[in-house]
Amino acid sequence: MYALVERLYPLCRSITGDGVRATLDIVGEYVPLQVHEVPTGTRVLDWTVPQEWNIRDAFVADAAGRRVVDFAASSLHVLGYSVPVSATMRLSELRRHLHTLPDHPAWVPYRTSYYRPEWGFCLAQETLDALPDGEYEVRIDSTLADGHLTYAEHVVPGRVADEVIVSCHVCHPSLANDNLAGIAVAAFLARALAEETPHYTYRFLFAPGTIGAITWLAHNAERIDRVRHGLVLACAGDRGALTYKQSRRGDAEIDRVLRHVLAASGRPHRVVEFTPYGYDERQFCSPGFDLGVGSLTRTPYAGYPEYHTSADDLDFVAPEAMADTLAVCREAFAVLDRNRTYRNLSPYGEPQLGRRGLYDPLGGRSDAKQAQMALLWVLSLSDGEHSLLDVAERAGLPFGAVAAAADALADAGLVGV
Amino acid sequence: MYALVERLYPLCRSITGDGVRATLDIVGEYVPLQVHEVPTGTRVLDWTVPQEWNIRDAFVADAAGRRVVDFAASSLHVLGYSVPVSATMRLSELRRHLHTLPDHPAWVPYRTSYYRPEWGFCLAQETLDALPDGEYEVRIDSTLADGHLTYAEHVVPGRVADEVIVSCHVCHPSLANDNLAGIAVAAFLARALAEETPHYTYRFLFAPGTIGAITWLAHNAERIDRVRHGLVLACAGDRGALTYKQSRRGDAEIDRVLRHVLAASGRPHRVVEFTPYGYDERQFCSPGFDLGVGSLTRTPYAGYPEYHTSADDLDFVAPEAMADTLAVCREAFAVLDRNRTYRNLSPYGEPQLGRRGLYDPLGGRSDAKQAQMALLWVLSLSDGEHSLLDVAERAGLPFGAVAAAADALADAGLVGV
Amino acid sequence: MYALVERLYPLCRSITGDGVRATLDIVGEYVPLQVHEVPTGTRVLDWTVPQEWNIRDAFVADAAGRRVVDFAASSLHVLGYSVPVSATMRLSELRRHLHTLPDHPAWVPYRTSYYRPEWGFCLAQETLDALPDGEYEVRIDSTLADGHLTYAEHVVPGRVADEVIVSCHVCHPSLANDNLAGIAVAAFLARALAEETPHYTYRFLFAPGTIGAITWLAHNAERIDRVRHGLVLACAGDRGALTYKQSRRGDAEIDRVLRHVLAASGRPHRVVEFTPYGYDERQFCSPGFDLGVGSLTRTPYAGYPEYHTSADDLDFVAPEAMADTLAVCREAFAVLDRNRTYRNLSPYGEPQLGRRGLYDPLGGRSDAKQAQMALLWVLSLSDGEHSLLDVAERAGLPFGAVAAAADALADAGLVGV
Repeated sequence: MYALVERLYPLCRSITGDGVRATLDIVGEYVPLQVHEVPTGTRVLDWTVPQEWNIRDAFVADAAGRRVVDFAASSLHVLGYSVPVSATMRLSELRRHLHTLPDHPAWVPYRTSYYRPEWGFCLAQETLDALPDGEYEVRIDSTLADGHLTYAEHVVPGRVADEVIVSCHVCHPSLANDNLAGIAVAAFLARALAEETPHYTYRFLFAPGTIGAITWLAHNAERIDRVRHGLVLACAGDRGALTYKQSRRGDAEIDRVLRHVLAASGRPHRVVEFTPYGYDERQFCSPGFDLGVGSLTRTPYAGYPEYHTSADDLDFVAPEAMADTLAVCREAFAVLDRNRTYRNLSPYGEPQLGRRGLYDPLGGRSDAKQAQMALLWVLSLSDGEHSLLDVAERAGLPFGAVAAAADALADAGLVGV
Repeated sequence: MYALVERLYPLCRSITGDGVRATLDIVGEYVPLQVHEVPTGTRVLDWTVPQEWNIRDAFVADAAGRRVVDFAASSLHVLGYSVPVSATMRLSELRRHLHTLPDHPAWVPYRTSYYRPEWGFCLAQETLDALPDGEYEVRIDSTLADGHLTYAEHVVPGRVADEVIVSCHVCHPSLANDNLAGIAVAAFLARALAEETPHYTYRFLFAPGTIGAITWLAHNAERIDRVRHGLVLACAGDRGALTYKQSRRGDAEIDRVLRHVLAASGRPHRVVEFTPYGYDERQFCSPGFDLGVGSLTRTPYAGYPEYHTSADDLDFVAPEAMADTLAVCREAFAVLDRNRTYRNLSPYGEPQLGRRGLYDPLGGRSDAKQAQMALLWVLSLSDGEHSLLDVAERAGLPFGAVAAAADALADAGLVGV
Repeated sequence: MYALVERLYPLCRSITGDGVRATLDIVGEYVPLQVHEVPTGTRVLDWTVPQEWNIRDAFVADAAGRRVVDFAASSLHVLGYSVPVSATMRLSELRRHLHTLPDHPAWVPYRTSYYRPEWGFCLAQETLDALPDGEYEVRIDSTLADGHLTYAEHVVPGRVADEVIVSCHVCHPSLANDNLAGIAVAAFLARALAEETPHYTYRFLFAPGTIGAITWLAHNAERIDRVRHGLVLACAGDRGALTYKQSRRGDAEIDRVLRHVLAASGRPHRVVEFTPYGYDERQFCSPGFDLGVGSLTRTPYAGYPEYHTSADDLDFVAPEAMADTLAVCREAFAVLDRNRTYRNLSPYGEPQLGRRGLYDPLGGRSDAKQAQMALLWVLSLSDGEHSLLDVAERAGLPFGAVAAAADALADAGLVGV
């Protein structure tokens, strides 16, 4: 995963353009992608697909022709979606187009202006402070023209058509944690799920933030009803603890699964309530859709000073952190995929487990084993209203033990879905 | 308000009689009142309007003719609703008609006997202790005769016919906090509400306790369905912290508003559950009506030793305390009056706020502002099930910010009631 | 009760056989019993009544003919439901039929093998350790043959046909707390209830564990709908604090009653959630029946080391502990039996209690008495949705005071069921 992040890091991504395409090309080497190109001007829900933005070069050069700010050094140096400019101006005039972080004078901020025509440069405060007054050459060699918005899907087919969507944004330039780590975890999660046929169909979305999710939602109206659960992956690689942000519904199955898996894992973690700010859960959880989609991050949105700055670089993400995020995703989806609500088919009194080989024939001992308790709990709570996850939580037993008990009872014809 | 309390203090009020009429005359100088006179014998719910009680003089005089207990000194000295008496008797015989407070020997208690014919005097224990044995002349020049029960209403018309009732009892004699302070706050609250047309119609009731509220309820059967919220004001002027007693329903909108406003104000305060004892919330919240009526006091019923004694005098109430009670009432009614449940008219995905001038065009910064968050929260929760107060509480934002966001979104056609 | 326990202690009980019959004969001296005999082979729910087991003698004798393990010394020495055996074998061969408690070397464990043909002996580890190698004579003079399963009922008729069941298991051999103490408390509870006609009909079941309860449920299908509440009594005599295990529903009336009574009593106690392990609440609370049946014990199932060992002897139970368990049962059933949901027949405003002699005629005092508050609370909450127990808990008043208020109000025609 870290190698994938390294390859993607230098590319200049935005909500449209060749940087996104190059990104998807590379991700496609890991998992096959179905790439969609949606023309500029397409109406998508309340929005319109904007013109496509591409950039070849950009710089600020001093009177000696020396590039004091250079896009070639980092894609962050240009305000995203900058209109083209070619001019010479005094520093005093240039200043209102320059974005810095006075509190972190060595870092370059990440800024955009997608929907208002604007141009600008982002640079370190200390770089700015070192610039002498005088004339500067300013050049942004970009194009804003009718084109397309690009996003991709990868589907892991399951045994049922009901879907789980996993979404990550692919629009940020050279920011490693936000969201190259999320992209990498998503790609490897897809590969892991494909190793055996899952119950649900898992759909992975690699799309630009906001407008990409909105475009997908607009073009998949008939599919929305099949989306049972979802997870937005972002900030998946920093060294902080995991944070799960619940869906707007707060009690969706994905919420309960993540709460259970994180708690059972013993990892330090946080579970937070939904807020209408963050990543594309904003769109999936908008009140018209209100899908059961949560968001898993390590340190969440804006929770670390490096957020949306050049300090979110390759050193900021750790291979072990990405591996940990992936492991929790796999554990969570294993529970989600196996969770089912059974019905006890012999609900009047306990069925005689002993003659079915499911009960210890020697009576009187006080050490009821976990497996035996799991059988009794599944029988007790399988009234059509409790899922296996409910049983595990109520019984204080591992989900795996409860699922194994359900398997044994189903084999014996004692419970059914 | 304090000046009003001072004027009302000397009057001898009871549940009927000229003291109530004189009180309403004075209140009427502040807010116009519609005065109702309900004849003795009128059936009101389970009760009957009693005979009217009036009193001109009352005293206990010693053998030397010196008045040792004198109604002219304080209206508290006579047991409320005392039947007339004119007799001479020994102190030993008189004692069973005398009420004192042994634990507070300098204070005169307040006692009544509305529904059992009785006569009596209330006096300080130390006064009683100083009386020598011997003969005393006892005189109560009162009348109990067919007449009327008197109560008054003041209405602040709103934009809708739905009503908020504000009720205060006007039957207590010379007790400043209980309830001249409540009367004064109610009168000034009515004046403040009339300064601009409120949403709801606000109906202020100035009525004797219990029988007055019951009479109003009996005579307004057709109006009850229009009563949406209500507040009983009592003990509104002592120096203690505010206490809000919730309606019987406990989750009525008035309960939520007062809890929110008191908590948001940072004031020390208490919120207590409903009990079927106290003031006229007993009637409004009886199970047949079960109205959303709470009660706001400072130190509540029986919570201070001066309660129902001569120590509840003009010194016991403070102008600043009454001003504080009034301020909270105004804040609460501002929220109640503005609270509305909106519906997001563009609920699929977020609407594009930027092209409506409602979103910061410069992206990437991590400092989402309160106003912007308020817009997103209103959009997220406006599904027809959350009021603006719900939004404010869920979002942890000031109600005013949420209401302003709703205004902006309504202006943009994005939400509607 | 202790005398009854002493008489029952030596008998060898199992889930069938003459030991159960002898036990019921003795209990029948205290409360008349209706004894049921259900033939071997009868299908009962998912189970089948097994063959009847009886035993006359059993021992292990050494080469000198000395009985080193002897059923005559304690019924625990034989594995319950042992098939007959008569053999001579070396200790090494015998060992796999011997059950001990290495952690408690002086105690004899209690073990059974009801549904798999097996034979065995239970003995102290220290007895086993002292046995020299060599040949042993092994004899179990038992019979397993078609016969009957025996259980008994005692009914205390009430004013309504709705039933409360009290169940205790009678299948354990010489174990005093589990469950001779439960049998004794049940018998004396039945006698106490019969002293006056209760509201509910109380049905006491004395039946072998699991198969007995299942048999009763299978043969009483038409009665189940009349079972309103129930309590399983076990481990009723040890010196530990009381534990109430709630029904599967968790909010059944019996659960609320026991929680209330135990809390109000001031006794140290524990209330635990339902688990599908324990005594016959497992059957009554199986999801098809899901009856409101809880379980009252002192130290619960497997919560004490003496559990299911020879150390659960006559010294382990205390007369005072049994008396305490009985007292709580009586208190609980007094509340359960009296609990009713009333409706205020004068719900609009407060009814005028004073003219009905239910209200203090002297007004103004601040010391509202408990009896008066109970009247007001019953009136306030009697809306058809709150039982007297709800009123008591909401008001923080003793159940008895609330019930007395309901009686007074019912006499005055102000509330009705």
